[in-house]
Amino acid sequence: MMVDSSIRALTFDVFGTVVDWRGSIIREGRRLEQEKGLQVNWASFADAWRAGYAPAMQRVRTGELPWMNIDGLHRLILDDLLEQFQITGLSESEIDHFNRVWHRLHPWPDARRGLRRLRRHFTLATLSNGNMALLINMAKQARLPWDCILSAELFRHYKPDPEVYLGAAPLLGLQPGEMIMVAAHNGDLRAARALGFKTAFVHRPREYGPHQTTDLTPDPEVDVVAQDFNDLAEQLQGQHG
Amino acid sequence: MMVDSSIRALTFDVFGTVVDWRGSIIREGRRLEQEKGLQVNWASFADAWRAGYAPAMQRVRTGELPWMNIDGLHRLILDDLLEQFQITGLSESEIDHFNRVWHRLHPWPDARRGLRRLRRHFTLATLSNGNMALLINMAKQARLPWDCILSAELFRHYKPDPEVYLGAAPLLGLQPGEMIMVAAHNGDLRAARALGFKTAFVHRPREYGPHQTTDLTPDPEVDVVAQDFNDLAEQLQGQHG
Repeated sequence: MMVDSSIRALTFDVFGTVVDWRGSIIREGRRLEQEKGLQVNWASFADAWRAGYAPAMQRVRTGELPWMNIDGLHRLILDDLLEQFQITGLSESEIDHFNRVWHRLHPWPDARRGLRRLRRHFTLATLSNGNMALLINMAKQARLPWDCILSAELFRHYKPDPEVYLGAAPLLGLQPGEMIMVAAHNGDLRAARALGFKTAFVHRPREYGPHQTTDLTPDPEVDVVAQDFNDLAEQLQGQHG
Repeated sequence: MMVDSSIRALTFDVFGTVVDWRGSIIREGRRLEQEKGLQVNWASFADAWRAGYAPAMQRVRTGELPWMNIDGLHRLILDDLLEQFQITGLSESEIDHFNRVWHRLHPWPDARRGLRRLRRHFTLATLSNGNMALLINMAKQARLPWDCILSAELFRHYKPDPEVYLGAAPLLGLQPGEMIMVAAHNGDLRAARALGFKTAFVHRPREYGPHQTTDLTPDPEVDVVAQDFNDLAEQLQGQHG
């Protein structure tokens, strides 16, 4: 394992790596369904919402859309999906509240305890495409013990643009090689690794539901492979006493 | 009192408001003195270091210096002071370590408990001229329970420039009127108030030592006046149940 005592901070992808967006949206959708007397396949709905995310960021990246944070992009996608899934009868404030389900996502069962253990040894920062307010609200609600919240929003670039990773390092007062990027996604880790970060792949084989086909296997280049955050804590604290 | 249930977040000045920079520098200076066999008036030293701070920021503000974070500005001032106070025999790494005494400042006795109480009701963010790494390291060492760390460094402007206050609001997803700026300094509160923030003045009559002459009295325009952070918590939680 290529992790040594020079590591000072861990930066975390959040959606899918720390929190279960799919399960959380399905649960909150079902509550909405009961309240409003709807009939919706919420698993399909959650998958469609998430599927709209990369293309929406790409529209920002190419300049087709002006800079817009994830709350804004989620809302663009949501407005389409409400039509597509024939969800009617929601007021503007109900739609806005539902759009913020992303602020209320639930952590994977190991996340909170694993982070608490890791925090004794390292500075823990988010490094997410989620906007600051989303990440702050999520951390407060889910009691995620971050040392600091960093977001793509600070750099007006979305991962995997290099600006995000390279912007985070000086804010933490560190060189990329003193940090581990933690994610359940090879693409995120590949971008970080190319810029000098160490990388840790965390298995989240049900992020996309029972039939997930992507990110089931880490790239051979990753420095650490962990089953979950407790496993990550055990592997890394061995290095740090 | 002009604080109502629309308040969602508190933003805090840090140096002097949350932490006792003067006492912390004096204590750490005295340890250095013993190790190195120096003879220095550390109260004068601490006062001189702090007195260099506003002029250094002004050099950045006018463009005489390029953007430089507080670690950089503290070091510029320190290099002069080492000469002025005839402090010799420190290696580069010892000077760098001493410069980071600002990362290791101790909180006022009421700060940690007061913040814990406030955090149950509000989002708590720093809004300091200290750089991100400084504030993150300080929070970790002093166990200050921030929900998020925001710094002038994110906006490349120093308080009281409006860019800092106006930059913080959208990152928290709030309007200025939904936030209270908390500081022991009328100048900081004046700038925030002019932009629509509510303001809370916290008395820190010994920040500058036993003979302090400034900021002993709050401006009449402040919304809340508190003796310390526990008093602030009591006054504000009354409003929030």
